[in-house]
Amino acid sequence: MLNRPGSIYGILHYSMGWSDPNGKSVSAQTGKALRPALCLFANETVCGKTVQALPIAASLELIHNFSLIHDDIQDRDESRHGRPTVWKMWGDAKALQAGNVMRVCADLALQDLVTANVNTNIALRVSSVLNEVFLEVVQGQYLDLCFEETTDITINDYFQMTSMKTGALIRASLELGALIGNSESRIVTAFRLFGRSLGTAFQISDDLLGIWGNEQSTGKPVGSDIKRKKKTLPIVLALSLSKPSDRKRMMTIFNQKAVSDSDLGVVLEMMGDLGVKQEAELMAKEHCQKAIDALAEVPMAEEFRERAIELASFLINRDS
Amino acid sequence: MLNRPGSIYGILHYSMGWSDPNGKSVSAQTGKALRPALCLFANETVCGKTVQALPIAASLELIHNFSLIHDDIQDRDESRHGRPTVWKMWGDAKALQAGNVMRVCADLALQDLVTANVNTNIALRVSSVLNEVFLEVVQGQYLDLCFEETTDITINDYFQMTSMKTGALIRASLELGALIGNSESRIVTAFRLFGRSLGTAFQISDDLLGIWGNEQSTGKPVGSDIKRKKKTLPIVLALSLSKPSDRKRMMTIFNQKAVSDSDLGVVLEMMGDLGVKQEAELMAKEHCQKAIDALAEVPMAEEFRERAIELASFLINRDS
Repeated sequence: MLNRPGSIYGILHYSMGWSDPNGKSVSAQTGKALRPALCLFANETVCGKTVQALPIAASLELIHNFSLIHDDIQDRDESRHGRPTVWKMWGDAKALQAGNVMRVCADLALQDLVTANVNTNIALRVSSVLNEVFLEVVQGQYLDLCFEETTDITINDYFQMTSMKTGALIRASLELGALIGNSESRIVTAFRLFGRSLGTAFQISDDLLGIWGNEQSTGKPVGSDIKRKKKTLPIVLALSLSKPSDRKRMMTIFNQKAVSDSDLGVVLEMMGDLGVKQEAELMAKEHCQKAIDALAEVPMAEEFRERAIELASFLINRDS
Repeated sequence: MLNRPGSIYGILHYSMGWSDPNGKSVSAQTGKALRPALCLFANETVCGKTVQALPIAASLELIHNFSLIHDDIQDRDESRHGRPTVWKMWGDAKALQAGNVMRVCADLALQDLVTANVNTNIALRVSSVLNEVFLEVVQGQYLDLCFEETTDITINDYFQMTSMKTGALIRASLELGALIGNSESRIVTAFRLFGRSLGTAFQISDDLLGIWGNEQSTGKPVGSDIKRKKKTLPIVLALSLSKPSDRKRMMTIFNQKAVSDSDLGVVLEMMGDLGVKQEAELMAKEHCQKAIDALAEVPMAEEFRERAIELASFLINRDS
């Protein structure tokens, strides 16, 4: 009853991009699997005992997918990776529950740390870091929701929210990948700092795509985050850089029930005049560089250092 | 930002009955705290080192509250313990997130097992049992949702769903309370079996209240579960005991978009003719006796045995 198509696991398979709504295997467009990739990268860089990092890599991707399922319900997003979102297919109630099951699967994946012979103390530390991460992610999602209802957000508020909502998991991916391979605190800290700045750079580039992204690659029309009143970095920057009369006009627009196409045009024009896009791109580049610098003291083969640079650069130059 | 009233923790305090919607302390009508009570009862019975069982007791209550917040969203229940539910107060999106934070709090509460000097292996076992419990609870909630959409449910399906949705947490409360005090497998198993039957008896009595409960005590009108098309035991029994023409009529009623007052009257009358209430009461009593019998071989002071009997009897004779 729980395993037939359309059952809870059928829904999870669909949301991972492994099957169609009827349970038939497909190779749908899936996510980038960024978090497991970061985790395995950190692990390979410090030791290469990849098998021990695999349960964490799997768990991270499941946590990420749990948060996407719930996020899509909250944001009323109707499509993801070119397919209807889970709530759009099965309704809110079942989607909520599917997210909850995905989250339990993430915990269950971690139990494989024992079979992979990971030291018990390290396993307990992994579990405690992931508890903190969960807390940050769900608190960050909550702040993000609250931000939709106000225009009174500073750049610091924005960075606090995003470091929780998106940053926590990216940071943990690198920190835990390193920890499982080499528990030396200097190394683990360096990867955590790498992850912290990388997470911020990643989110800024996401925010840029949410406004100026190509509709064909992102699946979302230009300005979509403005219409959703999402207080992403470009919007927070525009509000803080504009002169009082323009700020007042923007606040009036965001305080309306819905943002019309002509209001969208107004906001985009103001952003253009303020050079918000360039400012945000600069910030992304700065965080990207800060990320790479964090790894400077970590001994690693030149090949890995180049891959870290490539990775950071990919994250801020992608088109979806 | 996260701690002010109306913030995520303000919502959690409200949902626990500790504060009003503005964050002001109140002593609202709260839950029965049944799960922590069961956990501490089992623990006291086998050893009395209550301090070690407290983190589990707290965690169990938080898990229960997590599931109530999400359950109320899914069932569109507007009131609980005489106050508006979380989604009714703050909307679905924030309620969903509040539930997620409550669930993380449950995990965090368990970290106190270490400070309470619980043996690491036992702590890991607790954590693994609770992972399984989470999975059962969320899967059970999912089945419960699916059952609303069909009339094709056997008594076995019902018992499978309820043993997951409600039973898992009650079973774990007793099993873990015992485990933390005395890891002897014979003892732990006896408490698990006690919990299994007790959970079933508890759910049946809940089902009886959901149809014939006193509106003043339960806060719900007579027949409310029928209107919500919940496939509780009395309904499953009515469908399986009725003659073909009556079953067909009931199925037609449940397959309509909404159950009218006159249809509710028809179903209640059919149930009366079939003696469904008496049949369900008998089943509750049988499970109650089975629960008490499960403890027969566990050595305990006579006082505790009497309390176990009292407890079981309270659970099937309560009016809310």
